[in-house]
Amino acid sequence: MPVQAVPEPSPELLSLAVGLRRAATDLGQTSDQQRRDALLAMAQSLQSHAEAIVAANLEDRQRAEQNGLAPALLARLKLDGAKLDGAIAGVRQLAELPDPLGQRQLHRELDEGLVLERVSVALGVVGVIFEARPDAVIQIASLAIRSGNGAILKGGREAESTNKAVMIALQDGLKATTVSPDALALLTTREDSLALLRLDGLVDLIIPRGSNELVRFIQDNTRIPVLGHADGVCHLYVDAEADPDQAVTIAIDSKTQYPAACNAIETLLVHNAIAASFLDKAIPVFQAKGVRLLGDPAACSLGIEDVATDADWSTEYLDLTLSVRIVDDLETALEHIRRYGSRHTEAIATRNRATAERFLRAVDSAGVYHNCSTRFADGFRYGFGAEVGISTQTLPPRGPVGLEGLVTYRYRLRGDGHIAADYASGDRQFIHRDLPA
Amino acid sequence: MPVQAVPEPSPELLSLAVGLRRAATDLGQTSDQQRRDALLAMAQSLQSHAEAIVAANLEDRQRAEQNGLAPALLARLKLDGAKLDGAIAGVRQLAELPDPLGQRQLHRELDEGLVLERVSVALGVVGVIFEARPDAVIQIASLAIRSGNGAILKGGREAESTNKAVMIALQDGLKATTVSPDALALLTTREDSLALLRLDGLVDLIIPRGSNELVRFIQDNTRIPVLGHADGVCHLYVDAEADPDQAVTIAIDSKTQYPAACNAIETLLVHNAIAASFLDKAIPVFQAKGVRLLGDPAACSLGIEDVATDADWSTEYLDLTLSVRIVDDLETALEHIRRYGSRHTEAIATRNRATAERFLRAVDSAGVYHNCSTRFADGFRYGFGAEVGISTQTLPPRGPVGLEGLVTYRYRLRGDGHIAADYASGDRQFIHRDLPA
Repeated sequence: MPVQAVPEPSPELLSLAVGLRRAATDLGQTSDQQRRDALLAMAQSLQSHAEAIVAANLEDRQRAEQNGLAPALLARLKLDGAKLDGAIAGVRQLAELPDPLGQRQLHRELDEGLVLERVSVALGVVGVIFEARPDAVIQIASLAIRSGNGAILKGGREAESTNKAVMIALQDGLKATTVSPDALALLTTREDSLALLRLDGLVDLIIPRGSNELVRFIQDNTRIPVLGHADGVCHLYVDAEADPDQAVTIAIDSKTQYPAACNAIETLLVHNAIAASFLDKAIPVFQAKGVRLLGDPAACSLGIEDVATDADWSTEYLDLTLSVRIVDDLETALEHIRRYGSRHTEAIATRNRATAERFLRAVDSAGVYHNCSTRFADGFRYGFGAEVGISTQTLPPRGPVGLEGLVTYRYRLRGDGHIAADYASGDRQFIHRDLPA
Repeated sequence: MPVQAVPEPSPELLSLAVGLRRAATDLGQTSDQQRRDALLAMAQSLQSHAEAIVAANLEDRQRAEQNGLAPALLARLKLDGAKLDGAIAGVRQLAELPDPLGQRQLHRELDEGLVLERVSVALGVVGVIFEARPDAVIQIASLAIRSGNGAILKGGREAESTNKAVMIALQDGLKATTVSPDALALLTTREDSLALLRLDGLVDLIIPRGSNELVRFIQDNTRIPVLGHADGVCHLYVDAEADPDQAVTIAIDSKTQYPAACNAIETLLVHNAIAASFLDKAIPVFQAKGVRLLGDPAACSLGIEDVATDADWSTEYLDLTLSVRIVDDLETALEHIRRYGSRHTEAIATRNRATAERFLRAVDSAGVYHNCSTRFADGFRYGFGAEVGISTQTLPPRGPVGLEGLVTYRYRLRGDGHIAADYASGDRQFIHRDLPA
C-alpha cells in the first residue's frame, strides 16, 4: 500500500480540513458577483500589505542566499514590488473573467418531460504543494476562490515568511466579504503537507508545483487525483526551411527570457541542411546572453565546444544551458521529442507550412507551436487570467490550467414518474432531442 | 512504492503494447468516415459471429453455475441473442454520432498574427479491466475505435470464452477496414492484467469496471490515471410531499428493473410524515417483486420485518435487497447521503419544486434526479451511444462516460516570430480576441 509512507492526518489538520470543506461548500453556492467582490477585496488587501510582503520576501531571499540556494531557485523565490503588482493585476483580471460555475454544458430532452442537463459546479477543495515561487499562493488562491473552491496550500520552506505574509493579506481581504477566510489555509509543517495526501474525501484535487521527484512522490502516495506538473523538457526544432534570423530570435527568447520557467527550451534540434549557417548566427548571440551550449558530435564539429551526454537530452536545466543536436530530417526530430520530451511544449521554426502542419499534428505535447517562442505556454498569455499550473498529462485539464480546470460538472435529470422499465419493454422510446442551452 | 506488488511487464506484453500504440497512433489520424466504416464493419462481423458468441457465453454460464457463481453475477455474465443484438445496435448508433475528434474548442488571437487554438485529439490507448459483463468488450472496443483510441482489454475469467469469441469477431471485422485489428487486444492472463498497470507511457487511461476492491487496488498500484467506477450505493429520498403512487413506481423501478446494475438503489430514505402511508402501499409491491426489505427501528415499527445493521447503509447489494430508513427532514436525508453515498446517482420524489431544487443543488453526486428512476444513469439513456463506465470521481469525466470522455485536447499556437520578451517589456500587448470557431 502506497499510503503507508505517509503519516495519518493529525486531529488539528483533520479539523482544519473539515472546516475548510464546510467553507468551500458555502463558497460553491455564492453568486458570480460575490466571488468577484471577494477577489477585488483580496487584491486591495494585497496592495495594502505590499510593504510587509516584499519585506518578508527579502528576508526569505537573504536567508536562501546564505544557505547557498541555486540562482535558478533564487529567481523563482523573488517577489519584489513589480512582481507583486503583476500578481495583483492578475487577481483583478480574474475577477473580470466570466463565471466558470453554473454553465449549462448539455441540455437534452431524453423523452417528453424527461430533461437532462449538465451544469458546471466547483470541485470542492484543492490541495496545492509547491516549492519556492511565492506568487503561486496569490495565483492559486484567487483561481480557487473565483471558481468556488477552497484551497489548502503548502509552500516551500524557503518562501515561508513570504507565504505567511501573503496568506495574512488574502484572509484579511476576505474578512469583509461573503466568502469565509476559512476557505483558504496555509500548512506550515512537513508532516501536514504529507498528511494532506491522505485527506481523500476532504480534498478533491492535488496540484503539485515543483520538481519531477515531488510530482512522482505525490502520485505514488495519494488516492486523490493529481494534476501533474512535471518537468518541462521543451524543444525547438529549426527546420531546413526556417528563416534563420527569426529562428535565432525564437531560440534566444525560448531559452533566455526566463530560464527558470518550465516552458523554457532545454534542447535545440537543428536540421542538418541549415545547421552550419544557423549555428554561425546563433552561437555568438547565445554566448552574448551567457548561455552554455552542449552539442552532439555534429554540433560540436560546427563550433559548439562542450559535449552533450545522453543524460543531457532528458535534463531540465532551469538555467542558461542548452543542448543542441543536429538531425537529418523531421522524422528524427519527432523521434527525439517522443523519446526525451515531457509532453509540455514544443515548437518548430519553418517557412514551409506543410512541414509545420505535420509537426503540429505529430507531436503529442500539451502545446505545439509554429514560429513562436515556447515561453507563451502560460495561463496569463493564453488569456486564462492565471494558472494553477501546467499539466503535462494526457487527460484534461492539459497545458496551462486556469479556471476551467478547477470546475467539474453534475448531471441533473428531471422527470415526472419516468421509469427505465418502460424503455426496456419498448413501451416508450428515447427521443434524445437537444434543447437550447 | 505502490508498484512493487505488480509484476514487470513480460517482453511479450511490452511488444504487444508497443504494436498497439503504433496502431493507435495511426488510428488517431484517421478520418471520421474511416472510423465510422470501421464500426459498421465491427457490427457486421459481430452479427455473423453471433451464433459462436452466444454459444461461448452459454458455455461460460454453465461453468459459472457449476462453480456456484452468485445470481447477481450470473445475470451480469449473460449475453444471449437479445442482449447481443442490443449491443450491436449500440455499435451502429455510435457510428452515427458526431466525430469527437478535431473539434476546435477554443480559437483566440493572442496578438496580431499569433493565433491559439485548442483541438480535441484522441487519448492514445485505454486499458480496461472488467469483471463478468462480456457486453462491455463490445461497448468499450467500439467507443475506443470511434474516438480514435487503441484499447487493451482484460475481462474476468468467468467470461473468458465469450470475451475471446467477441474479440475474434471485432478484429475480423476490422481486417477489411483502414483501422488495424492491432488497435484492439485482449489479455488473457492475470499476470498480464497486473503488468498492464505498469505500462505508463504506453497506456493513457485505465478503466476498471468491477468491485470497489478492484478499483482501489488499481488506483493504489498504477501511475496511469484511473477512471474510477466504484460501487454504486444509490439512494431514493421519498419526500413528505411526494406523490405516493409515483414514488412507489420509481422505487420499484430503481430497485428491481436490473438489480445487478450499479445505478440501482440500495437505500430508500422516507420522510417521517409520509412513511406510514407510503410503506403501506410499497411493502406489498416490493414483496410481490421478491425484494427483501431491511429497516431501521422506525421502518420496522411500520411493517418492515428485518433489521438493517449499520453496515447495510454502505452495502451495494447488487441483488433484490433494499434498506429503508425513516428520516425527519430533508437535512437528515442529505446528511445520510453525504455519509454513506458513493456520489453515483441519487433521486428525490416530491411534488414540491423548491424542495426538489434544494436537493438537486445540495447533493454532490455525478447524477441528481427529480421524480424519475436512478436507472437512467447510463450512457445509452443519456444519448451518448454507449459508455465505458460511470465515473464517481469529482473530476471530469464524471457520470456515464461516452466518447467525450475518451478524448483530450492539444493547444496549437501559430505565430510569425513572436517572442515573449516583447510582451514582458511592454513593447507589445496581448489582445486576447476570440475568433469564430
